Amino acid sequence: MDFPSEQNYIEQLSIDCVIFGYHQKQLKVLVPKLNFNGDFYALPSGFVIQDEDIDAAADRILRGRTGIQDTYIDQFHVFGKAGRSNETFLDKLLELNKDTLGEKGMNKKQYDWITKRFVSIGYYALVDINKVIPKKIAIDASIDWYDVRELPPMIMDHNEIVAKALDHLRINIDDKLIAFKLLSETFTMKEIQELYETVFNKPFARNNFQKKILDLNVLDRLEKKFTGAANKAPFLYRLRG
Amino acid sequence: MDFPSEQNYIEQLSIDCVIFGYHQKQLKVLVPKLNFNGDFYALPSGFVIQDEDIDAAADRILRGRTGIQDTYIDQFHVFGKAGRSNETFLDKLLELNKDTLGEKGMNKKQYDWITKRFVSIGYYALVDINKVIPKKIAIDASIDWYDVRELPPMIMDHNEIVAKALDHLRINIDDKLIAFKLLSETFTMKEIQELYETVFNKPFARNNFQKKILDLNVLDRLEKKFTGAANKAPFLYRLRG
Repeated sequence: MDFPSEQNYIEQLSIDCVIFGYHQKQLKVLVPKLNFNGDFYALPSGFVIQDEDIDAAADRILRGRTGIQDTYIDQFHVFGKAGRSNETFLDKLLELNKDTLGEKGMNKKQYDWITKRFVSIGYYALVDINKVIPKKIAIDASIDWYDVRELPPMIMDHNEIVAKALDHLRINIDDKLIAFKLLSETFTMKEIQELYETVFNKPFARNNFQKKILDLNVLDRLEKKFTGAANKAPFLYRLRG
Repeated sequence: MDFPSEQNYIEQLSIDCVIFGYHQKQLKVLVPKLNFNGDFYALPSGFVIQDEDIDAAADRILRGRTGIQDTYIDQFHVFGKAGRSNETFLDKLLELNKDTLGEKGMNKKQYDWITKRFVSIGYYALVDINKVIPKKIAIDASIDWYDVRELPPMIMDHNEIVAKALDHLRINIDDKLIAFKLLSETFTMKEIQELYETVFNKPFARNNFQKKILDLNVLDRLEKKFTGAANKAPFLYRLRG
């Protein structure tokens, strides 16, 4: 979350990004910790500039924390309950940081702007975790990948936003071929299956799974992976470009 | 679209509703025509009151034009291009209605409010067309059902909004069992098939289709439909409650 100042943003509208990565049978989410007393974790978030498309705003937020711009990112749900506001969280943050904030660090006008009710558009992005070097922005103390099943408690409804994003990832995984965005450019069939098993948190039968994936008819089979044991080496695949 | 006055709405945020009905092999959309010179057609739309959930706002807009409240309605996409504004349409409307509007009919402050850039949350609803008596609100000259393939040109991006809603209807038709919301409480297998064929605009093989629907395992088979020719009468079905 930026703290808006001179920037001309649309009021009461925010964007929250769930950035998924995958590594060693763990589906991970990129979560910054805010640079204030109080252990506040918050999804990468931001606002929409008046002359900016909402998709461009989401790209900007993703790029700001990952450096990545060419990957899958899409809106998945709008969070718009009437009581949805930063106020409780910000009151607590100010209380725990009154020595350094208050009159000086956050002026009254910014505070009014940001404690209104916010409707938030949820976006989810899928990145190749090897290509991302997580970047802190000014308000971050740290930014790290967390297993989706072991996320820290986050501010507001951010944990629910991740749960809803995971639902959408599961629903769209085949139709939009988005799973492959979580892998490196080339991968073995076993690696795809492990990814699916991680996303759905259940095992799949090897033969059925392999048939299903090959029936999607979207992969090119490449050379065998170099493992040292040539005759047992698995084939590498790549998403047809 | 309401023209906002004293009501305390969230600025620059609107809701557009695509209300689908089905009748005699036609998928229809409920479209009001505005009560001004110039043949302006616009989806049922509105704004979000400050203390109102966005879903409640969509329900309110649906209820206002149909009287219906217990049916399938869900958000499907946010339309948020930077250039998305009522300004061109409203300038044209004012030009064509300057004798009756202008200083008197629409005050300057309302006009400023409504010509800003708007981010719009698209909702789609599925109704049993037999239960709806379309209702005009103050700004409507008429409100009618139009075949989705023969819609009048609508203001702004409203035709695109319908196209996107139709995409979502097709994607979700089985998972969410929403097709049945377009039918009366009881229906024959032939009626379901005709509905699917209309929604997808293509024929389905009878045996496969019937198997697929029965495999969903969500229907109760009732008595035979009374047709006068008892031995050829088809069974009636109902969505399991």
